[in-house]
Amino acid sequence: MRFDTITIVGVGLIGGSVGLAAKARGVAGWVVGVGRDTKNLSRALELAAVDAISIDLTAGVQSADLVVVCTPVDRIADVIRRAAPHCRRGTIFTDGGSTKRNIVDAVAGALPAGIEYVPAHPLAGAEKNGVEHARADLFEGRVTILAPDSRVCRDETSKQVGEFWRALGSRLEWRSVEDHDRALAATSHLPHVAAAAVAGVTPRELLPLSAGGFRDVTRIAAGSPELWSAIFLANRAEVLGALEKLTDRLGEFRHLLDSDDGAGLVRWLTEAKQVRDALGS
Amino acid sequence: MRFDTITIVGVGLIGGSVGLAAKARGVAGWVVGVGRDTKNLSRALELAAVDAISIDLTAGVQSADLVVVCTPVDRIADVIRRAAPHCRRGTIFTDGGSTKRNIVDAVAGALPAGIEYVPAHPLAGAEKNGVEHARADLFEGRVTILAPDSRVCRDETSKQVGEFWRALGSRLEWRSVEDHDRALAATSHLPHVAAAAVAGVTPRELLPLSAGGFRDVTRIAAGSPELWSAIFLANRAEVLGALEKLTDRLGEFRHLLDSDDGAGLVRWLTEAKQVRDALGS
Repeated sequence: MRFDTITIVGVGLIGGSVGLAAKARGVAGWVVGVGRDTKNLSRALELAAVDAISIDLTAGVQSADLVVVCTPVDRIADVIRRAAPHCRRGTIFTDGGSTKRNIVDAVAGALPAGIEYVPAHPLAGAEKNGVEHARADLFEGRVTILAPDSRVCRDETSKQVGEFWRALGSRLEWRSVEDHDRALAATSHLPHVAAAAVAGVTPRELLPLSAGGFRDVTRIAAGSPELWSAIFLANRAEVLGALEKLTDRLGEFRHLLDSDDGAGLVRWLTEAKQVRDALGS
Repeated sequence: MRFDTITIVGVGLIGGSVGLAAKARGVAGWVVGVGRDTKNLSRALELAAVDAISIDLTAGVQSADLVVVCTPVDRIADVIRRAAPHCRRGTIFTDGGSTKRNIVDAVAGALPAGIEYVPAHPLAGAEKNGVEHARADLFEGRVTILAPDSRVCRDETSKQVGEFWRALGSRLEWRSVEDHDRALAATSHLPHVAAAAVAGVTPRELLPLSAGGFRDVTRIAAGSPELWSAIFLANRAEVLGALEKLTDRLGEFRHLLDSDDGAGLVRWLTEAKQVRDALGS
């Protein structure tokens, strides 16, 4: 698995790690980083996450065999639509976005002949953003979800892109676009809402009386508000659905506690523990 | 700071760690472990968390200078009330319970003359329970909250017990019983409810699509359902109050998302991030 030239659009934590991993593992001959902030791009160059940088999207993709779009989710489709007409026939797009339907819907029908897009999502985010935190081993042992859709790519191309993400160290899971967005609403977007809600209602003067549990539960609330706002908006219906399940579940807890139902509380907590125990530590 | 004989009632994670720390730091001449399960007590003896064990509470406390009650919160008051008449005049009780008002209310007026109880709460729990996980350094750098109340102890006695918890390695915070319970509802009990609610609504088949965020948010949901059910019931009014704030906050989020209010979502998320950032990583 090797692409002669890979262009990464958006060189932050994920984009920078794609560059470092692709170079470390011999997956790329040459890596071009495209962005809007020359200071950030220069830092990516210093860190050797990319071999060359450009602030011109159309110039940056013109010799690419693979373009990996790692911008915030609300800009991915636009990047692909603007860049695609300037690519050589055969260029493949993939991405690192946390939502998929909004991107696939916006890209479908807008790709020139011979250009394909394989939706992907490496589950390797962190509460720390920025190329400073990029690592060549970020994807090792992590899952990358591939969500190919016949409107934007052929099977053989999605397999090729799957091999690319696997070559960076990740394990592959294949899902439909819809299944991806519904699953991530539950496993990623909802936990973020819960973490931020808990942090948001905690008076600061009580922080000295918090311990490891609070730290763990709220850790991801330190993530970028802009990135997460975009994710929630891009997956609105699924996030609202997951949120309704959560508030119903909290309502059950409230009722059990309000009615002093110790056995019911133990059952409610045990159901949660069984799920968490199934995940491992 | 030294007590000739310390009796620990309930030798699990906290009780076992009190024994290990007290012995390692020369705080105790002799440590007696009292419990109901001989297998667990024998394990505590093997691990040198205690010097002697007993399943007879009244015998186990009769020569104690300090009795540290580390049972689940719903049994602490009962242990103190049953044990106190068998103690020597001058024996001091303290505890490791996550709630305080229920215990102080039940103990007030029930102590024989010359016996005092100093309510304490070391913030050093974990999702792993049991003496197997006890450590001599469990309290190092952690906070212990002292919540003395004139109905159960004198100032000089509470200072002495504060010194004891400090000698085990913890930093002291002094609060009223009411302030303790209200604060912990926000910083510990509510995060537990949120973690368990998120885990409880997650279909198991989606766990392979979860990542670090889900792991962090739900980690404490692996805690003991019985211990936590008892904590929630013991602090019911405060937990219900904190839960109402959380559901209101989630309602704000739902409204912002439902009305496509990106700026509002960023503001909502930023308020949470500021609290979390104030805590540090």
